Amino acid sequence: MSVYLRDIPISQAQSMLKRALIEADLWRILGSETLPLDEFALGRVLAEPVWAKISSPHYHASAMDGFAVRALATAGAQPTKPVILRVGPDARYIDTGDPLPEDFNAVIPIENVEPLDAEENIASRLRSPVAIRIRVGVTPWSHVRPMGEDMVVSQLVLPAGHTLRPVDLGAIAAAGHDGVVVARKPRVAILPTGTELVTIGTELTPGLILEYNSLVLAGQVRSWGGDAIRYPITPDDFDAISLRVMDAARGNDLILLNAGSSAGAEDFSAKVVSSLGDILVHGVAVRPGHPVILGMLRQNCAEGVLKVPIIGVPGYPVSSALTAEIFVEPMISKWIGRSPLEHNTEAVTMTRKVVSPAGDDDYIRVTIGRVGDRVLAAPLPRGAGVISSLVRADGVVILPRGVQGVDAGQIVTAQLYRSKADLEKTIFCIGSHDMLLDLIAQYLAGHNRRMTSANVGSQGGLIALQRGEAHLAGSHLLDPKTGEYNLPYLSKYLPDKRVRVIVLVEREQGLLLHKGNPKGIQCLGDLTRSDIRFINRQRGAGTRVLLDYELEKIGTSGAEIHGYNQEEYTHLGVAAAVASGRADCGLGIAAAARALALEFLPLFQERYDLVIPLEFAESSLLDPLFTVIDSKEFRAAVEAMPGYNIQRMGQILVEA
Amino acid sequence: MSVYLRDIPISQAQSMLKRALIEADLWRILGSETLPLDEFALGRVLAEPVWAKISSPHYHASAMDGFAVRALATAGAQPTKPVILRVGPDARYIDTGDPLPEDFNAVIPIENVEPLDAEENIASRLRSPVAIRIRVGVTPWSHVRPMGEDMVVSQLVLPAGHTLRPVDLGAIAAAGHDGVVVARKPRVAILPTGTELVTIGTELTPGLILEYNSLVLAGQVRSWGGDAIRYPITPDDFDAISLRVMDAARGNDLILLNAGSSAGAEDFSAKVVSSLGDILVHGVAVRPGHPVILGMLRQNCAEGVLKVPIIGVPGYPVSSALTAEIFVEPMISKWIGRSPLEHNTEAVTMTRKVVSPAGDDDYIRVTIGRVGDRVLAAPLPRGAGVISSLVRADGVVILPRGVQGVDAGQIVTAQLYRSKADLEKTIFCIGSHDMLLDLIAQYLAGHNRRMTSANVGSQGGLIALQRGEAHLAGSHLLDPKTGEYNLPYLSKYLPDKRVRVIVLVEREQGLLLHKGNPKGIQCLGDLTRSDIRFINRQRGAGTRVLLDYELEKIGTSGAEIHGYNQEEYTHLGVAAAVASGRADCGLGIAAAARALALEFLPLFQERYDLVIPLEFAESSLLDPLFTVIDSKEFRAAVEAMPGYNIQRMGQILVEA
Repeated sequence: MSVYLRDIPISQAQSMLKRALIEADLWRILGSETLPLDEFALGRVLAEPVWAKISSPHYHASAMDGFAVRALATAGAQPTKPVILRVGPDARYIDTGDPLPEDFNAVIPIENVEPLDAEENIASRLRSPVAIRIRVGVTPWSHVRPMGEDMVVSQLVLPAGHTLRPVDLGAIAAAGHDGVVVARKPRVAILPTGTELVTIGTELTPGLILEYNSLVLAGQVRSWGGDAIRYPITPDDFDAISLRVMDAARGNDLILLNAGSSAGAEDFSAKVVSSLGDILVHGVAVRPGHPVILGMLRQNCAEGVLKVPIIGVPGYPVSSALTAEIFVEPMISKWIGRSPLEHNTEAVTMTRKVVSPAGDDDYIRVTIGRVGDRVLAAPLPRGAGVISSLVRADGVVILPRGVQGVDAGQIVTAQLYRSKADLEKTIFCIGSHDMLLDLIAQYLAGHNRRMTSANVGSQGGLIALQRGEAHLAGSHLLDPKTGEYNLPYLSKYLPDKRVRVIVLVEREQGLLLHKGNPKGIQCLGDLTRSDIRFINRQRGAGTRVLLDYELEKIGTSGAEIHGYNQEEYTHLGVAAAVASGRADCGLGIAAAARALALEFLPLFQERYDLVIPLEFAESSLLDPLFTVIDSKEFRAAVEAMPGYNIQRMGQILVEA
Repeated sequence: MSVYLRDIPISQAQSMLKRALIEADLWRILGSETLPLDEFALGRVLAEPVWAKISSPHYHASAMDGFAVRALATAGAQPTKPVILRVGPDARYIDTGDPLPEDFNAVIPIENVEPLDAEENIASRLRSPVAIRIRVGVTPWSHVRPMGEDMVVSQLVLPAGHTLRPVDLGAIAAAGHDGVVVARKPRVAILPTGTELVTIGTELTPGLILEYNSLVLAGQVRSWGGDAIRYPITPDDFDAISLRVMDAARGNDLILLNAGSSAGAEDFSAKVVSSLGDILVHGVAVRPGHPVILGMLRQNCAEGVLKVPIIGVPGYPVSSALTAEIFVEPMISKWIGRSPLEHNTEAVTMTRKVVSPAGDDDYIRVTIGRVGDRVLAAPLPRGAGVISSLVRADGVVILPRGVQGVDAGQIVTAQLYRSKADLEKTIFCIGSHDMLLDLIAQYLAGHNRRMTSANVGSQGGLIALQRGEAHLAGSHLLDPKTGEYNLPYLSKYLPDKRVRVIVLVEREQGLLLHKGNPKGIQCLGDLTRSDIRFINRQRGAGTRVLLDYELEKIGTSGAEIHGYNQEEYTHLGVAAAVASGRADCGLGIAAAARALALEFLPLFQERYDLVIPLEFAESSLLDPLFTVIDSKEFRAAVEAMPGYNIQRMGQILVEA
């Protein structure tokens, strides 16, 4: 059977896989092992229920330091009418945890007792009184932990399928066990393939690709309760891959073959799987990640035909990680007898419109945070190659097949990758990009805050503030009429918001150039030369406004510049375009030039402010932001970067 | 300085500890280490931020298998007006991930290309066409992953203090690192002390106590990111404990001394700490757990005086675990540079009134589940010795100092120990106790449901259903007038509820007796003998109603029975009371007698039903309950237990 890249829905693919596993008698706990009851059993999953073998306490235990008595003998004791009990026959000293002597049925705490000597005077040494005097009676079983108070023989302590936590270990011990029967860890072989792949740490040249999918897959397998076995990289060669797969099929429960699962000339996964077993599915209607192969290998062995599931995992890192979440996690959960992991969900408001292919389940990574009384989800870059989108993701919004997208402002359900408590600590920053935002994020992490930035340009940031979509905006929006930054725009973009505007920094803007300035660019006017390819910032970016303003001053315009319509969204994006040769120059900040070892031609100085609605500026959420900006450490770190002037940092320009 | 058991508030104790750690220069990351970048770094905490050392991709990479072209050369191509590009000078074959050749700026996917041979006929072999024909143009950078698309050199990838997840490992690799600098794990020495303690696995006799606090503490330390070192049990001896503490102070970052932290004659912890250093706090106003010692040891060493914090942890298991949560977790978090763990919180409705000491922060363990549209919290047994209360806890409600309790129905905030998704799978069962409920709970765990039972008697269960506090109730409430079970009570206790009543089982009730029946008890009438001590069930329990009914039949009453007012809440509780000698007999079920190896004198047969409001009976939450009850496996397990008749199991008696 061969199904060739005809995308089928996830749920159908999952049930085809499940059916094949049931047929192969592999849809069950794979096995169990007995571990000693120690802290290394943490996180393992019980393969059998734990029933109490003994009661706890296993005898009637005193709950206090005091005297064991018979309750009846204390009846009637009153402050004015005390009762005296002889130590020995009627009262016996007892420490917390000691067994209640036979025929005694209550304990009087030591602090409620007057110890007496032979003459019925109060004795000084507590432990050897001849008698005790009490002024309050006790009821039977007072201050006693009766046998079985905690658990009684035969009682269920923990069900099978339970994942062991620290307190569970104590309860299992209390129940009389000194070992614990847990599911054995499934062994998952991870086989990276690809002639272009190199291992982490290799010096890179164009065309070489760092192989780290196996690392992420191994981490996932491990975090889900399996053991991961990472194989060396196999080049794109049918025989080499076949040999590797056959080798891995011996002694492993699952094989992940990454990548080569597409239908290109060098994609051997499907051929290998169909030659060594059956392809169940080739192609799943999910974005990102559709060229998935689900298969079942047949291995001849002494006991007959051994079946081993194999998954052809797509090569793009986001596709690879999502494929594992969708197909591998439920399999491992089943194999260790645990319910599949479920993310908490949350109703979130999308900040941007997203268009989605109607035929696919579409996994949209989002950052999530509370702004005012709404929980907002901002879509992250969608490329399957952008692993940083998974790192930054607080959750995922899944648009099911048949849905063609969501609108900005629409409320959808997100599966959360972080705890809700974490989301409440997220500061949403939007607007213009400056590298100091990364630096602030780093310092905020030390204050139990997480800052997530979306780069939409200065103007976009102010609009987002007005819409209640961020806690603050970075802005350096020049007003061509007045030459002033930001403040003239407040009444236009934030007509009804009370805001605090503070100076973050003054910074140099200039041209980012190739090392040595091979094209001899000397001023803004050179941009119109026909041999110069420029890279621009997006519409609404403060840097673009600045460029247009300065171009107008020298009597020219963007229309005369090659590449004026080529847009990047950040200073680093511009720098990367220059560094890679995509462009000869772009306008940006010095720090971006330094980061990519470019030449920097300083042209202008500008002010970069933070615009913060007062309701947020005065919230405890943002407190640490001001602490960071005022701190010596942060200012020293900024001064160490080129092109920044911190003299006015933190100055409040507007607060109203 | 010595503060002797004067309870101070938690927050004050925490800040005294923090101040002492700051003075000792121990309120910081203790150190860092570089790990190779592999899956074993998972869960470790970054000691330094990760900045991108390279861009990713580090060159312009093709995003598709296809032909690299110059976008300009494709301009104007239309279905009816194709453009032909010569392979070599104008188009070059390129695989996904290959670098874009110099001077090319776009890729046309292979599926959009017609390969041509020298005569401009369509060529069969894709890789060696002489030219390609295209019918749609592309814009610059189409199907290209530009350098830095994922991350750009110098960009912040992850901040310090971040706990590593699988995808992070990939991003760190993509950023050009082959190692990762993480905080070193704090070393926590755990010293169990107590002459009465024995290690797990020891044969027990009364007075011996299994030492498992060290296991729970080690598990906690490990789960919070520390290394735990468990020491052998030290007897209650000042010199022995002092030696052990001095030994542990060398090479460990924190010492947990458990227990002996109270003020009894054999409590040496305070004396040891004050002789080897300073006591900062002795006694914290928290319930359970107040006899906590916080101290700082001074150790002379080559470098001067080394300070090591020490915590005297109370001996009761719940107190021990909570003390660690309150004082140890924040310390470990600080030492590894992570924000202290925070539980998610949830507004919950208390099902029962709880009285709380006004002077203490009171930690009330609760089970939590959604019943209808309310999230309910049912308080668990409060004893500090009841570790099963921590195992069963879904969260904790903290009643702060000054609050004297909460009322039933009051809404309070719970800190959650489980995910919210888990709570939505909780089935609340209340009412009469039968051991089959444990068995059902075990089977339900395999269906992704968790059943938590509260034993309040049959009558209490029906009342709870009426109040909307449970999904179902177990009941065997005899109507003395009709001799019928449960049904006559529905109109009284559930006047406005539509319910389904199904038979769970028919079972024998009888007397639980000592082995060999030493007192020769033959019938219910013997209970009035003066040499017989009886143990009863609580008011409202079906078993008690049955007892009263049968006593009346033989013309006697509870007033004539010794121990009639001694109450237990479960069959196992009754059995434990008999087994331990607290009573000579009690009325209960055969399974409880067998569990504790008691003699069983069968007297009556009764029906035990499940009463389920229709709204829940028809919900997907409870579906698996009926699946379990109908399953062969469950029925076989019930038949293997004594005293049960499964003939009518699952029969619907009422559905209206």
